[in-house]
Amino acid sequence: MATAQFHPANVLDIARRARAAARQLATLSHAQRNDALLAAAQALVDRRAEIVAANELDSTSALRDVEAGQMTQAMFQRLKTSEGGVAEMAARVRDVASLPDPLGRTLAATELDEGLTLYKISCPLGVIGIIFESRPDVIPQVAALALKSGNAVIFKGGSEARHSNEVLASIWREALAPFTEIPPDLINLMHTREDVAELLTLADEIDLIIPRGSQEFVRYIAETSHIPVLGHGEGLCHVYVDREANIEKALAVAFDSKVQYPAACNAMETLLVHEEIAPEFLPAMIEQFKSASVEMRGCARTIALTGREDIVPARESDWRTEYSDLIVSIKIVATADEAIEHIQRYGSGHTESIVTEDDAMASRFMDAIDAAGVYHNVSTRFADGFRYGLGAELGISTSKLHARGPVGLEGLTTYKYKLFGDGHTVSMYSKGERAFKHRSIG
Amino acid sequence: MATAQFHPANVLDIARRARAAARQLATLSHAQRNDALLAAAQALVDRRAEIVAANELDSTSALRDVEAGQMTQAMFQRLKTSEGGVAEMAARVRDVASLPDPLGRTLAATELDEGLTLYKISCPLGVIGIIFESRPDVIPQVAALALKSGNAVIFKGGSEARHSNEVLASIWREALAPFTEIPPDLINLMHTREDVAELLTLADEIDLIIPRGSQEFVRYIAETSHIPVLGHGEGLCHVYVDREANIEKALAVAFDSKVQYPAACNAMETLLVHEEIAPEFLPAMIEQFKSASVEMRGCARTIALTGREDIVPARESDWRTEYSDLIVSIKIVATADEAIEHIQRYGSGHTESIVTEDDAMASRFMDAIDAAGVYHNVSTRFADGFRYGLGAELGISTSKLHARGPVGLEGLTTYKYKLFGDGHTVSMYSKGERAFKHRSIG
Repeated sequence: MATAQFHPANVLDIARRARAAARQLATLSHAQRNDALLAAAQALVDRRAEIVAANELDSTSALRDVEAGQMTQAMFQRLKTSEGGVAEMAARVRDVASLPDPLGRTLAATELDEGLTLYKISCPLGVIGIIFESRPDVIPQVAALALKSGNAVIFKGGSEARHSNEVLASIWREALAPFTEIPPDLINLMHTREDVAELLTLADEIDLIIPRGSQEFVRYIAETSHIPVLGHGEGLCHVYVDREANIEKALAVAFDSKVQYPAACNAMETLLVHEEIAPEFLPAMIEQFKSASVEMRGCARTIALTGREDIVPARESDWRTEYSDLIVSIKIVATADEAIEHIQRYGSGHTESIVTEDDAMASRFMDAIDAAGVYHNVSTRFADGFRYGLGAELGISTSKLHARGPVGLEGLTTYKYKLFGDGHTVSMYSKGERAFKHRSIG
Repeated sequence: MATAQFHPANVLDIARRARAAARQLATLSHAQRNDALLAAAQALVDRRAEIVAANELDSTSALRDVEAGQMTQAMFQRLKTSEGGVAEMAARVRDVASLPDPLGRTLAATELDEGLTLYKISCPLGVIGIIFESRPDVIPQVAALALKSGNAVIFKGGSEARHSNEVLASIWREALAPFTEIPPDLINLMHTREDVAELLTLADEIDLIIPRGSQEFVRYIAETSHIPVLGHGEGLCHVYVDREANIEKALAVAFDSKVQYPAACNAMETLLVHEEIAPEFLPAMIEQFKSASVEMRGCARTIALTGREDIVPARESDWRTEYSDLIVSIKIVATADEAIEHIQRYGSGHTESIVTEDDAMASRFMDAIDAAGVYHNVSTRFADGFRYGLGAELGISTSKLHARGPVGLEGLTTYKYKLFGDGHTVSMYSKGERAFKHRSIG
C-alpha cells in the first residue's frame, strides 16, 4: 500500500499534493465522503491496540518529562489515551458522518434574466493547516471534519505525541486507501518547528491555519503569517446583573458562568452588578462563591457594601485579566450604560450575558454589545459548538470575519457563484437589448 | 455646527471616535439609517455647485500634472466630475437606501431546549478603512453602504482629489448633523501616506481595510497590515470552448468576455479550445477578434492549425499575464481535463466559463474549478455586483474567506449569536437534569 505511506518530502511538496487532493475531494458525493468516514471510524476501533501501544511510548517518555518538571500534569493528561479513548474518537468520527452535508447547499438563487440563473453554492475551502499539541484525538476529529467538508488537511503535532500521531494518521490513510476515489494526500502530518515556519509562508497553498494552543501561540501565528487564521483569542466574558434581575436566576447564571468550568474561555471573569440590586444580590452571591472557594476581587463599592475583608481590592489590571481560574472580579455600576461601557472597554468580544426581567433592557444590551455571543438570562458557558447544535467544534472565533463564535463544519466552507446561461453576453445588456430581472428564487 | 467640522487629530483618536460612532450606529433602526441616507443624497444635490467648484480646483491642478506627464489621462478622467456626476452620486445613494436592511437578519434559529433559543443575527462589522485614489464618487458611495450597514468609515483619499473629498465628506457630516442619533464620526477623512501607515497598525480599532487601486497596491496593503483586507486580487479569467460547444454561443461568449470591456478584472485573458472543435471554431473566432483589433498570442497548435502569421507565438509568461487590454492568448487542448488543469494552474480564482451543450461536462467543470464564479455558456463579464443583483458593489474578492466574488452590503456585515434563556445553566445539562433538543426553527 505505497500510497498509504508517508514519504519524506519538503513542506511545499506536501502542500501541493494536499492541494491536488483537495481538488479531487471537492468533486466527491456526500455518500462517498461518509462511506470513507465510517471506514476510518471502524479502522480506529480495529487497530486500537496499535494506537494504545504507540501512545504508551509517548506517555512513558512524557512521564519522565513530568517528573523532570519539563511537562505539566495537565499536558500529560491530554496526551494519554486508552482503548476507551479510542472508542470515543471513533464515535466522534461517526457523529461527523451523521451531520448534514455542508457542501452544495444553495445559499441564494437569483434569476438574473430569462435563461440566466445565478446560484450561490457552498463549497470547500481547500487546504487546512492545523497546529496542535499533545491531544492525539485532534487527528481523527479534524480529519473527519475536513473529509466531510471536502478539505485536505496538514497536521503539525507536538513531538511529545509523535508516535500516537503517526499511527493515527497512518490508520486514516490506510483505511481510505481502498476508496480509490479518495486521494491519500487528504491527510498529511509534519513534526518539526521548521516545518511550521515554512508552512506559514505558503499563502498560495494553504487556505486556512487553525492554531490550537495558548493565546500567545495563536497571536504568534496570526502575526507571523499572512494565511488567514481561525483561532480563538481571549475570552474575557462578563455577566451583568441588572436592576430588574430575578435574584434566583442571577445567582444561578453567575455561579455557573464562573464555577462550572473556570478554565474554559467562555467562563465569566468579571461580574457587574447594578447598584440598586447589589445590597440584596451580592451577599448571597458572595456566599455561593465562598462555598466554591472562588477568590474575589471587588471594586471599592463592593468592599464597602459587603464589609468583607476576604474580598481583595480589584486593580485596573483585574478588569483586563482572563483568570481562567476560580477567581472573579466584581464591580458595582450605577447604570446599565456603565455596565455596557465597561464591557465595551474590557470585553474581548467573546460572550456577554445580561440577567434581567426587563426585555427592553436586554434587547438594548444585546444590540449595543459587539460580541460573538450576547445572552439574556443564560450562563456564558453555553458558548460551545456542541451546545449550539453545530455537531462538532473547531474552536471559538473572536474574529468577526468568516466565522464568529463556535465554529463547526461551516467554518471549513466558502461558496462559489454558479451562473447558468445560454450564450448570454454583457453587451446585450449594455446596449439595452435586454434588461435584468433580478428575481430571487429562494 | 461644531460637530460637523474636522478636528486635527491623530489617527488613533480618529479610529477611536469612529469605533464609538460605530457602536451608536449599531443600535439604530433601518428607518433611521435610511432617513439619514436620503438627507445626504438631497444635500449632495443642493450643494452640487460647491462640489463642482472644489473639483475644479483639483482638476486644474491635475491638468498641470497631466501636461507635465505626472498623471495619466485615465486618472484625470476619474478625478473630474460635473453637476451630472453629482446627480449620479445622489442617485446611487438613494439606490442604497432602497435596498433591504442587511442588519438584523435571522441567519439561523435553533431551539436548544425548552425556553432556551439561539438566533444567529446579522450585524455590522464596526469600523471600515478605505484607501482610494482619484474618484471622489467613492466617498458618497461607500459612505452610503457603510451607513446602511451600521458601520463607521475612515476614508483616505488621494491628494489629487483633496478639495473634492473634503467638500464631499463635510457635506455628508453636515447633512447628518440634524439627526441627533447619528454620530458625526461615522465619516472620517485622512489625506497623507503617514496616516495610512499608522492606520494599518490599528488592528484593534479597524475591522476591515478596503484598498482600491492596482493589484500591487492591494498586495502591499495585505502584506503590510494584520487587519483583514477586502480587495480584489488578480483577475486571470478563462473561457473554455468544449468539444460539445454550440459555435454561435462560443463566439458570442468569448468575444464579449474579451472585448466588451478589456480593462475589467473579469475580462477573459486566455481562450482554451478543445482540439475537435478548433478547426471549425477558431477561424471564425480569430476573424471576430481581428475585426475588433484584438492582438492574439497562440500556442503552437493554434498557429499550425490557422496558418496565420499575425498570431504571435504564446510564451509560458502569456498564460500568467492579466493583459487588461485587447490582447488574448489562445491554447488548443486535447481534453476537458487539460483545460481544467490549465485553469487550476494559471487561473486566479476569479471567474471561469465553459461553453458546452454537454450539461454533465459543465457540471464537472464547475465542481472541479475552485473560483469565485464558475459559468456555463455565459460571458465572464457578468461577474459584477450590479449584474448579480446585489444593488451595489464594494469590489470583487478573490479571497475565499468572509466574502468571495462581487461583494455588496453583506460584505460589511458579520453576525452575532443571541441566546435567550430563563436562568439556564450548563451544569443542568452536564448533570443530566436536562437534555438538548437542537430543533431548527428556521
